[in-house]
Amino acid sequence: MMTIKDVAKIAGVSVATVSRVINESGYVNIDTRKKVEAAIRQSNYSPNEVARSLYKRKSKLIGLLLPDITNPFFPQLARGIEDYMQENGYRIIFGNSDENADKELDYIRTFVQNNVVGVISSTNFPDSGAYLEMNIPVVFLDRTSNDSPSVYADGRKGGRLAAQEMVARGSSRITIIQGPAHVKPAQDRFQGAAEALAEMGISYNVIQTSSFSYTEAGQWATELFERFLDTDGVIASNDIVASAVLREAHRLGKTVPEDVQIIGFDDIPLSSLMSPSLSTIRQPARDMGSAAARLLIQLIEQDQVEDKIIQLPVSFIERETTRSRMETSKKG
Amino acid sequence: MMTIKDVAKIAGVSVATVSRVINESGYVNIDTRKKVEAAIRQSNYSPNEVARSLYKRKSKLIGLLLPDITNPFFPQLARGIEDYMQENGYRIIFGNSDENADKELDYIRTFVQNNVVGVISSTNFPDSGAYLEMNIPVVFLDRTSNDSPSVYADGRKGGRLAAQEMVARGSSRITIIQGPAHVKPAQDRFQGAAEALAEMGISYNVIQTSSFSYTEAGQWATELFERFLDTDGVIASNDIVASAVLREAHRLGKTVPEDVQIIGFDDIPLSSLMSPSLSTIRQPARDMGSAAARLLIQLIEQDQVEDKIIQLPVSFIERETTRSRMETSKKG
Repeated sequence: MMTIKDVAKIAGVSVATVSRVINESGYVNIDTRKKVEAAIRQSNYSPNEVARSLYKRKSKLIGLLLPDITNPFFPQLARGIEDYMQENGYRIIFGNSDENADKELDYIRTFVQNNVVGVISSTNFPDSGAYLEMNIPVVFLDRTSNDSPSVYADGRKGGRLAAQEMVARGSSRITIIQGPAHVKPAQDRFQGAAEALAEMGISYNVIQTSSFSYTEAGQWATELFERFLDTDGVIASNDIVASAVLREAHRLGKTVPEDVQIIGFDDIPLSSLMSPSLSTIRQPARDMGSAAARLLIQLIEQDQVEDKIIQLPVSFIERETTRSRMETSKKG
Repeated sequence: MMTIKDVAKIAGVSVATVSRVINESGYVNIDTRKKVEAAIRQSNYSPNEVARSLYKRKSKLIGLLLPDITNPFFPQLARGIEDYMQENGYRIIFGNSDENADKELDYIRTFVQNNVVGVISSTNFPDSGAYLEMNIPVVFLDRTSNDSPSVYADGRKGGRLAAQEMVARGSSRITIIQGPAHVKPAQDRFQGAAEALAEMGISYNVIQTSSFSYTEAGQWATELFERFLDTDGVIASNDIVASAVLREAHRLGKTVPEDVQIIGFDDIPLSSLMSPSLSTIRQPARDMGSAAARLLIQLIEQDQVEDKIIQLPVSFIERETTRSRMETSKKG
């Protein structure tokens, strides 16, 4: 009869580690866990008991709340999360919040009732009591909240980049499309663009919008050129809105990027297939998803986690809706 | 002290219905359930016991398997499912299968271990033993499998429509882009287009593709015009591929739709924002999702379900990548 010591010897790990794997308690590196499981199979150690715990155990569930999976930024996030969770034996209960506090609360309540061991949430209400009361780890994704664990891209830097590239490529009558007021990352990118233009001494127009919806995007694009027909550079609130602006510019007989340059935000997959392809500020959405998943698993499995606030970099993706950088230095 | 009869009286339903609501057994219409719950609150009937069953009960979980949430057709499906499930008190465990049989099996196993009460799956392996062995209701979505419950759009009709519209609008050197061989709906739409062209006596070219990936779409678009430079009508395998064809046509200096007409498939949200906007065959993705959710809940809650196989209609959406219909009747 094999003992736990034999299993530990075969796996080349300590008895305590084997015990942690069997009892699913404490943190075990995924590779180590696989090694131990292989050793258990090989040694035939206590098959009834252990086989059951290993092969019939429930996957741990985590809850995932996103505003709306049909906004093409979020499937990328979700995919990054799901891939990482799947590899590590976690499963996801998923809900769309529609940025509605009641719907969000309803989901959080049912997450808890279904014994999720952690939650990832892209919420506009990170300071809601609901998150504090859960007593399980929560990671805010694409959002920040004081000292709470969070993963997000540097939106302000993204806005600054968009403004700087727009000016360096020769636009001077710039319009910023300001995203929905209640969406914090949309405001960060707006602030970044506005402050960079101010620093360069460049005046600008602002178009207010209240959603990222496909149907409304077209209306704002129309409004933009009605109000500021001679604008020669549009910093859009995201790639959906940028594609609506591109379409409206074409409809009005403007050439892009000669008459008007356009820079989007997100770098959704279709941006590279548009015609002309869309210059944009890239958020590393899949990486953001993986980072959030990794952080949540650390918070669930480990006592101490060093980096609980993770900011990922953004970058300018040069495609065909912007001109070449000018030889001369910046205007203003 | 209130009794179950009092509750039934207040709610205006039978005692049996109240009992079904309290015990969560058998089918109860959602409106009726709300009425009964309100009556229970109003009557203060057995608060400890019932309040617990009503307000602390676990949501029932269902499993959802989609090939890849980053393909913009699937978020629409997922949204249709999630909205309907959310309204009816069900929650979704979600996974991407990547059309990989092992990954799919792994998900199905963990769905069962997590006590899901039903599964919705867009699988290429509907006849896998895994589905038969589950002993819980399964609805195949965007797929068919003999007599199994399923919800799908009429892909063959869609392919026929694309071919007929293409010819009626004046194209005669038509290229069909054939979608991945292992994806049944992609083959259905190809068959439909091919047989409609054959019936009209119109010759055509075929480009083979093996995925719906964004990066590969560009390569197939390039190949298409390298091999068939004079093609004047492209029936694409989906809207992603159609947008790559549109882009490549522009790059080659062709005007759309004058030199070449393009018809996509799916009607993803961005199709209407492209420039020119994309004519396409619309699949009612959200409705397909809701229908699958409704069917699954019926299978879970009811003894008898009449319509287990639901085919939804497709339609031609005329936008700017096709010309006007010609006055003359069809060619050939």
